[in-house]
Amino acid sequence: MTTTRPRQGRPRHTAQSDPHTSARDQILDAAGALFVAHGIAATSTRMIAERVGIRQASLYYHFTTKDEILAELLATSVRPSLEMVERIQAWVPERVSAAAALYAVAATDVRTLSRTPYNIGTLYLLPEVLAERFDSFRADRGQLQESYGSLGAAAASEGVARSLPPERIGELLIQLVEVVIQIRRSREPEAADTEAIASSCLRLCGLDEPVVTAARDEARILLSRLA
Amino acid sequence: MTTTRPRQGRPRHTAQSDPHTSARDQILDAAGALFVAHGIAATSTRMIAERVGIRQASLYYHFTTKDEILAELLATSVRPSLEMVERIQAWVPERVSAAAALYAVAATDVRTLSRTPYNIGTLYLLPEVLAERFDSFRADRGQLQESYGSLGAAAASEGVARSLPPERIGELLIQLVEVVIQIRRSREPEAADTEAIASSCLRLCGLDEPVVTAARDEARILLSRLA
Repeated sequence: MTTTRPRQGRPRHTAQSDPHTSARDQILDAAGALFVAHGIAATSTRMIAERVGIRQASLYYHFTTKDEILAELLATSVRPSLEMVERIQAWVPERVSAAAALYAVAATDVRTLSRTPYNIGTLYLLPEVLAERFDSFRADRGQLQESYGSLGAAAASEGVARSLPPERIGELLIQLVEVVIQIRRSREPEAADTEAIASSCLRLCGLDEPVVTAARDEARILLSRLA
Repeated sequence: MTTTRPRQGRPRHTAQSDPHTSARDQILDAAGALFVAHGIAATSTRMIAERVGIRQASLYYHFTTKDEILAELLATSVRPSLEMVERIQAWVPERVSAAAALYAVAATDVRTLSRTPYNIGTLYLLPEVLAERFDSFRADRGQLQESYGSLGAAAASEGVARSLPPERIGELLIQLVEVVIQIRRSREPEAADTEAIASSCLRLCGLDEPVVTAARDEARILLSRLA
């Protein structure tokens, strides 16, 4: 890639920066590393700018506040899954079963969370993220949880549908998918983890092995079409 | 409040302190509130002492460092469940099924996490808790996870036992139980949540509704005997 980079503010000169990564992405990357390692309160925009190798003033050209950076990082951990939910839901119920749709959403979500820089899903439980200024992230995650609830309720066995309302199914499923955040704290997640977690979501809905296997095969075809 | 503020170093008389609560417990309570609200880095022993209404020197009489307080708080979130695991495992397999034992452990663990002061389970994901100085907490939680793995593997349907090794079952189950930490961030958990989570653990192991119902009834009898 020898094409010119977009000029933002002034040209930056730093040894650390990868010429193929935009300044904005470098800031997000540095912030992710610092937030996860030190927490939100202990991370300043000065530390972020230093890690990128730019001046604080240059950072402010891209982000007004530290919270704005965090909000964008949080969004990257949930948005791709939400977009996939919308695309998958358009296929239900005519062309795929609710079970396959649920499997596909869960697998997509596991992969999204497997790839967030520095496993920033670990920030979900921080007290700061409960604050109002992250309303937009919490609304996104709430919407994802709702989709898990409605897909799970539609897929559930009669017994589970009778004992668990959709909201509760949603709470359980989103958290089960987020197991991958915990896994990443000790090891690299594998394809087998994606399969184990997505299958567990279906089992939690009371589906038995033949149904789980059929839904997984159906979901794979669906995902390859949407890819 | 017209009472005098506590004199430091001397016998304490404070309107805030409950005479039935030991100084040690008051320190733990204050620290829990501060850690959860502000994070670990932003909480100092001075802030904790101030909240209790004692001098920092008096705090040091009970705890040498902030980390020691946090370690004890973390222990209270996992130890009661570990103790129950030991008592329950002694009943398996002669007197209760593995499914009932798993239900009983999960229900006990949900209740423990429902009662931690200030929902201190939210601290589990903090980067600081990954540090070596909290090895003992992580060893405890690892042991609990292992018990989930072995009980889950023993209870699992043939299909699930074939596709998930015990370690993976343990990872999934402990995280599923910890859904209650997330629930507590938005509402008070109810008895129905305990039942929903413990039943979901059995379903995740591939057990169908009649088996789940039977295990739940068996677990209730077991828990009332162990109470």
